[in-house]
Amino acid sequence: MIRLHIPHDLAPGAQFALDEGQSRYLSVVMRQAVGDLVAVFNGRDGEWLALIATVGKRIVTVTAQTCARPQNIGPDLDLVIALVKRGRLETIVEKTAELGVRRVRLVTTERTNADHVRIERLRAIAMEASEQTGRLDVPEIAEPVKLDRLLAEWDPTRRLLFCDEAGDASTVFEAVTTPGPWAILIGPEGGFSPAEREHLRSQPFTVPANLGPRILRADTAAISALTLWQAAVGDWR
Amino acid sequence: MIRLHIPHDLAPGAQFALDEGQSRYLSVVMRQAVGDLVAVFNGRDGEWLALIATVGKRIVTVTAQTCARPQNIGPDLDLVIALVKRGRLETIVEKTAELGVRRVRLVTTERTNADHVRIERLRAIAMEASEQTGRLDVPEIAEPVKLDRLLAEWDPTRRLLFCDEAGDASTVFEAVTTPGPWAILIGPEGGFSPAEREHLRSQPFTVPANLGPRILRADTAAISALTLWQAAVGDWR
Repeated sequence: MIRLHIPHDLAPGAQFALDEGQSRYLSVVMRQAVGDLVAVFNGRDGEWLALIATVGKRIVTVTAQTCARPQNIGPDLDLVIALVKRGRLETIVEKTAELGVRRVRLVTTERTNADHVRIERLRAIAMEASEQTGRLDVPEIAEPVKLDRLLAEWDPTRRLLFCDEAGDASTVFEAVTTPGPWAILIGPEGGFSPAEREHLRSQPFTVPANLGPRILRADTAAISALTLWQAAVGDWR
Repeated sequence: MIRLHIPHDLAPGAQFALDEGQSRYLSVVMRQAVGDLVAVFNGRDGEWLALIATVGKRIVTVTAQTCARPQNIGPDLDLVIALVKRGRLETIVEKTAELGVRRVRLVTTERTNADHVRIERLRAIAMEASEQTGRLDVPEIAEPVKLDRLLAEWDPTRRLLFCDEAGDASTVFEAVTTPGPWAILIGPEGGFSPAEREHLRSQPFTVPANLGPRILRADTAAISALTLWQAAVGDWR
């Protein structure tokens, strides 16, 4: 069944118009008709079945029927990702939705070529991936900040898994043994600078871990680290 | 240091020309000069330092100096992947190199839209990713076969981890507890048909496992399953 994220409150009989992109998708691409059912969610009220009430090429309206799944929320897991090239950054954002990340925090580092980030496009990718992966919320995506500032303002009760290429770090499974608020930090393609690595290692909330014997691209490192975290203490157990 | 996969045998003083693409990459893109060092490997003789002996735009020749790393080989892990859309298939092949897969076996299934596969392009992607990830061999990529035939000809001593969306399968960590030859099977975007799933489950060598509570795209499923396998019994321990 088609799933759509919508901003409206959901209650029995609630009626609303879908936005133009969703309307065109339903009417033109998926050829849905009056009386067809779609699933809708807003991140607050669970997943609802909604009946298509009117169909135009530009506006489709639906009426919420019944709640099919109560709202839930995944583990308290953030991904902190250095700005990498656009294609890989977009892939990573798509994967954060599939892998149950709650928030994506973009950072710039010494070796980041911080060109312009199209944050609205990243948010659209996160929304579409959330629709397709079946989750009931959408990862938040925060505006980029500098790594120094992020660390200075860090809530020390949230541990930060720092994927360190240095060979002496333990495995993710050795490093992540207790649940609770976590974030995973993935550096830029050029790696962290020695000063940044030193600074990261000196923070009381950082936990270094290694990701095997080969060099991984940022998208692979993000997916692998998130997977291992979910298997260790998240909702893949 | 720049790493290049080459077909030639490596021994002290061995001299050979790089192919046109590698030559252009070294001379034009990376502006290397006579006397610069590159790393070369052929999947048999380890990684060697090689001195650039002559530089032309179309042909660069090098002379092997010393063996920097002896040949090694990763765990005996294959990925069996249904033909998915080209972009995602290319991503998956890149990731198999990073994640230490030995062979990629392409399959067609009932729900595969098996359009043309550019196998030489996939092999080039595997080679380039192997150069960048630091491994000393390149994953083999086999021509596509039908799933039925693959299973009929399967070596039963190789276990086949079958990522099953059915909720009753155990986790990868519960399913993969012993090393030895393994393969991981990832289905097409539309999933396996009920008949295919039944057939897979009835094979003595298949081991079902689930990949968490959300629906994953094929590329995510492949990376996650390979990561968990490497962490459980592979070279990420």
